[in-house]
Amino acid sequence: MITILAGGVGGARFADGVAKVSDPDAISIIVNTADDFDHYGLRICPDIDTVMYNLAGIADPVNGWGIAGDTRATLDGIAAYGEDPWFLLGDRDFSTHILRSAWLNKDIPLTSVIYFLRSRLGIASQILPMTDQPVATMIETADGTLAFQDYFVRRRQADDVTGVTFAGIENALPTEPATTALTHAALILLAPSNPIVSIGPILAIPTYRDALANRTSPTIAVSPIIGGKALKGPADRMLASLGHESSALGIARMYQGLIDGLVIDQQDADLAPAIEALGIRTLTTDAIMHDIPDRARFAAEVLAFGQSLKQAVPA
Amino acid sequence: MITILAGGVGGARFADGVAKVSDPDAISIIVNTADDFDHYGLRICPDIDTVMYNLAGIADPVNGWGIAGDTRATLDGIAAYGEDPWFLLGDRDFSTHILRSAWLNKDIPLTSVIYFLRSRLGIASQILPMTDQPVATMIETADGTLAFQDYFVRRRQADDVTGVTFAGIENALPTEPATTALTHAALILLAPSNPIVSIGPILAIPTYRDALANRTSPTIAVSPIIGGKALKGPADRMLASLGHESSALGIARMYQGLIDGLVIDQQDADLAPAIEALGIRTLTTDAIMHDIPDRARFAAEVLAFGQSLKQAVPA
Repeated sequence: MITILAGGVGGARFADGVAKVSDPDAISIIVNTADDFDHYGLRICPDIDTVMYNLAGIADPVNGWGIAGDTRATLDGIAAYGEDPWFLLGDRDFSTHILRSAWLNKDIPLTSVIYFLRSRLGIASQILPMTDQPVATMIETADGTLAFQDYFVRRRQADDVTGVTFAGIENALPTEPATTALTHAALILLAPSNPIVSIGPILAIPTYRDALANRTSPTIAVSPIIGGKALKGPADRMLASLGHESSALGIARMYQGLIDGLVIDQQDADLAPAIEALGIRTLTTDAIMHDIPDRARFAAEVLAFGQSLKQAVPA
Repeated sequence: MITILAGGVGGARFADGVAKVSDPDAISIIVNTADDFDHYGLRICPDIDTVMYNLAGIADPVNGWGIAGDTRATLDGIAAYGEDPWFLLGDRDFSTHILRSAWLNKDIPLTSVIYFLRSRLGIASQILPMTDQPVATMIETADGTLAFQDYFVRRRQADDVTGVTFAGIENALPTEPATTALTHAALILLAPSNPIVSIGPILAIPTYRDALANRTSPTIAVSPIIGGKALKGPADRMLASLGHESSALGIARMYQGLIDGLVIDQQDADLAPAIEALGIRTLTTDAIMHDIPDRARFAAEVLAFGQSLKQAVPA
């Protein structure tokens, strides 16, 4: 069994690649839920939906999020009623939010709701919310503390991030299936997602962090930073403003103690020795997923790297 | 000021006609809410929305309900998740349900929510829910008791109706603006709506029924039965199965004591003497609204009839 920790578009695309080159039934994806928020009275789970839509093969290929070819009549109607349509939601996409919200309001846990939704989308892999309790990433800036989507979407990541907290994390319980997926995995993969706001919330739940710290199977991260830059999103600037190094080496330092290997891009080959010196093995390759078929190429390389680490794992 | 009691498509079209031939600012429409129901976790108010969309000039001209040219991607998505899409809801239409539900969940009264929605649609007339408390029409049939939309939409009015009750009506308070609209009206109009399930719930609130019984201004009903048949919907069969006469005379008997005049179609001219014998004046005319411009023709005739009754009203 392969277990992936993911959040955001890069994580979803990576998980899709892994599902394309291995048995999708044997994949569990633990997804960040700290981006989730309530909007127009509906519960929106951007990272989970991005994973679902990518694995269902219906994601918008350009944006990475949302549904390919989706229309926008509902949001236009909401705007016509005078509400600010700052968070883009397509018509078909609304069906996800409406049903999820209806079921959550009946006290069905998010894990069960997502199980149902992903099954109906024909997805064989498990998509596991990191927790069933609400957690909310809060972004500290010179303008004050912002809700995550306010920072990320409404203000287009223009603010310098001076701090990040996860409201509610102290009450966020690990779920049974996510814990099992981590403790029973033959291979654990940290997707090329933002280490602070995508992987960070998952690792802020002690059970999961402990599972990685005490892992008995190879654990590999994929650097979301290539040549010092994030391919997508504000990870590079966020790392720098929070005192980390925006590089594959910076990523290695953040995950030190939790991973056995790091996949880095060929542009960062010169960083490999310093990463290896931290006790982290490296795979240097073309770490950019250039298109949908290329996700499979990249995932196959990562899985082969995992296989090669089987002997190297701490007992 | 003109106050209209309405429910359903016929009522909405009639209200639209009245608004076209008089000052729309001086019109209040008290609308049945006993058809309202929760669906996919959203609050749906079919009669209110039909009035709103007709007065906003955006109603589907064929169906009478829903929004002209609306698409169906959200409902298709809901169906793809395995839910039965038995109640048709368009994408733009969903914006109404989503915002209404969000506000109701914040404990904003339905009257205030509808004030906001109709204002944003550019509607000058007041659209007043009959109550802010939930009421649910229940239909008794040989197959047991059905929720109204189950009878009306899902089962296409195929059941013989053996009884009608309004669950929650004992806790339904009259609203301040609807009560004022009735007690201060210069003319009260009962739209050509189903007398049992559209006008019936409104009159089941004692304050409103008493306001009609003690009226000081002319009150006119428009018969929804022409030549013994309902133009739309199951009113004719429902009247018959509940022991009423499915005719303009049957309508007159049901409203006796509450109205001063009844508008009947020329096909029913022979019933006028019997109706007049009940102490109800009649206007016999072409009572079918043939198209959108014809709503204005018909409304103008009804208003002129109201004017002619000014002297005839009981003190």
